[in-house]
Amino acid sequence: MISSSNSFHIIHTCPETKARAGELLTPHATVPTPVFMPVGSQGAVKTLTPQEVNSLGINMVLANTYHLYLRPGIGVIEKLGGLHNFMGWDGAILTDSGGYQVFSLAPLRKVNDEGVTFRSHIDGSQHNFTPELAIRYQESLGADIIMALDECPAHDDSPDRVKKAMERTHRWAERCLKTQKRHGQALYAIVQGGVFPELRRQSAEYLTSLDFPGYAIGGLSIGEPKKITLAMIDETVAFLPEAKPRYLMGVGSPEDIVEAVARGCDIFDSALPTRVARNGALFTWQGRKNITNAAYTDMEQPIVAGCSCYTCRNFSAAYLNHLFNAGELLAYRLATIHNLSFITELMVKIRSAISDGAFHAFKKDFLAGYKPTDEPTRLSQKRKWLEKRSLNQAD
Amino acid sequence: MISSSNSFHIIHTCPETKARAGELLTPHATVPTPVFMPVGSQGAVKTLTPQEVNSLGINMVLANTYHLYLRPGIGVIEKLGGLHNFMGWDGAILTDSGGYQVFSLAPLRKVNDEGVTFRSHIDGSQHNFTPELAIRYQESLGADIIMALDECPAHDDSPDRVKKAMERTHRWAERCLKTQKRHGQALYAIVQGGVFPELRRQSAEYLTSLDFPGYAIGGLSIGEPKKITLAMIDETVAFLPEAKPRYLMGVGSPEDIVEAVARGCDIFDSALPTRVARNGALFTWQGRKNITNAAYTDMEQPIVAGCSCYTCRNFSAAYLNHLFNAGELLAYRLATIHNLSFITELMVKIRSAISDGAFHAFKKDFLAGYKPTDEPTRLSQKRKWLEKRSLNQAD
Repeated sequence: MISSSNSFHIIHTCPETKARAGELLTPHATVPTPVFMPVGSQGAVKTLTPQEVNSLGINMVLANTYHLYLRPGIGVIEKLGGLHNFMGWDGAILTDSGGYQVFSLAPLRKVNDEGVTFRSHIDGSQHNFTPELAIRYQESLGADIIMALDECPAHDDSPDRVKKAMERTHRWAERCLKTQKRHGQALYAIVQGGVFPELRRQSAEYLTSLDFPGYAIGGLSIGEPKKITLAMIDETVAFLPEAKPRYLMGVGSPEDIVEAVARGCDIFDSALPTRVARNGALFTWQGRKNITNAAYTDMEQPIVAGCSCYTCRNFSAAYLNHLFNAGELLAYRLATIHNLSFITELMVKIRSAISDGAFHAFKKDFLAGYKPTDEPTRLSQKRKWLEKRSLNQAD
Repeated sequence: MISSSNSFHIIHTCPETKARAGELLTPHATVPTPVFMPVGSQGAVKTLTPQEVNSLGINMVLANTYHLYLRPGIGVIEKLGGLHNFMGWDGAILTDSGGYQVFSLAPLRKVNDEGVTFRSHIDGSQHNFTPELAIRYQESLGADIIMALDECPAHDDSPDRVKKAMERTHRWAERCLKTQKRHGQALYAIVQGGVFPELRRQSAEYLTSLDFPGYAIGGLSIGEPKKITLAMIDETVAFLPEAKPRYLMGVGSPEDIVEAVARGCDIFDSALPTRVARNGALFTWQGRKNITNAAYTDMEQPIVAGCSCYTCRNFSAAYLNHLFNAGELLAYRLATIHNLSFITELMVKIRSAISDGAFHAFKKDFLAGYKPTDEPTRLSQKRKWLEKRSLNQAD
């Protein structure tokens, strides 16, 4: 029904893992995979201009229907010529449907088969999302890839609640598919099923039967233990079609990306690299370092010696340390540039390793050297954080 | 005694006003005057990289000894190779001595002939500035132009107090001159005298007798009525040497710059253009416009039609309005770029008009079209604002 200029093909596969390197063709960009998308929920990757994002070697970003619907409103963006034009970005865009945001950000939500009513986290006004509206809004925004509306249970919900949310997500996915009219946008379905292998299988199989051009793995990395996250990726990927792109939603730490690539995921997004940057946590090949640490007060070298990013080429760790301590807005920007540059370089290394048949060794070496930082991920804390943040600058 | 690579020469003068166009030679840049310096108190022009500042056509910025002394500390910057190296700026730098900041930002200050003790506005720790230390610190920072330590009375202080502060400022200026050792830095004296013509005359005459390479007009635009500010500029300039550069401290609104150029001032600095930008007030040739106004919600044009700045070339007023409403950090940056670009363009127009013998007409036309916005400038409010701001990101 929909003739789409979106397509995906796999170029190399890893003999020892499920990793694959490919190419995602979208109307606005040809995107090599595995790929990480920076998050620009409100139509801007925080602190950066579109030109800067592009100069980091990034040609696909994520934006959020929920945020843009509430502010500035879908109608404003439509009038301004669509989201690409509005935000001055001519690369590819993927818009999330708003499902996850409604279930994690909006208070007083009520969900039934028709859709979900919720109050705005900004002004408390009441709103309503249905699968049909989510598609209509995303068609107005005009992203290259759009997402079906899903219901996201909490990570500790009962199997029964998770099953009900999954089944509703399936019915909504079908309605999204039927609603879709605009050409040139690829509509991806979102696999749910929580932490239950049987539900993950059912969800992947059911949605696969509907033949979407791409599949997302939703409802993970929301508070469950890391081992469970990885196991659920395995349980889901096993039942997804080989030839379609797989998008692991909300995962973006370097170590998680490497693990998930090995499990067959192609597309990633997360606010983590940009958010931790604004908190002073900078990625290095040995793990995250906190630039506000006193050890950097008079360090003449950049935070990562030999790093080719703008920040490291031009500024000492001491200067970054000073900007953070002084609360200078430039700090957040220079740290964001570094972290996105790091992730982009990581993705280049991952793709090269897959192409060279050396991904398994790369993964082993990388994970041996990289010391992840413990970060609270329990849902309650995440929600609390999101609620606090969203008052001013929600991601 | 000091052989300086700093010099100033006047190229054109206006036949109808006291305006002059010239060139300020500094070790790091040849600066055409009249010139506006953006403020980078803490070693960064807020939100911008040095490359961006330079790309706006700006080659001289102001930094603050008071701020840099407190954070990161003079020793850190010295170790990192001086202020130019530390902040990655290879244009000219003028450092203020810290006089004004101690008297406007720091609590519990005590001043006597020796110097001034004060508490840090950051952590309450006690510190001491003397004329000798102010010069030593500025020699360590290594700016192209440095300032003598001055005592700044409040705009409503009694004539007697203002006179005493002026006389102390004179004694301190002499000590600064005697202390100065480093070559290649031009030391400017600061004329005080409050709102009293006779004191302004005495101060200008006395400091002129010491033969500094440049003269600043201090203690203005701190709460007194605009008419008084302009009258005091006249009363001061009349007694300053024609051949030396005149730096009007802390003045930076477009209308005030035009008025002060007409009165013979050459150099300006102010946090106003960048500060009001972060509050959403954007300069246009008709005056300041508040981008958060609902009128801009869906305006497809840039805030200033035909403006050649990066912001106006790339983004609609609607997008800026959205970024401000959404609290996106990019908003502050795009607005800063626009306002600094506007002021730079204004300075280019001023210099061209002087060169073409058309400044008087330019001034009349500009002021007829430009509607300034009323802004509270009473000292108490300014101090309050400064104190509040300075907790996080003091200018």
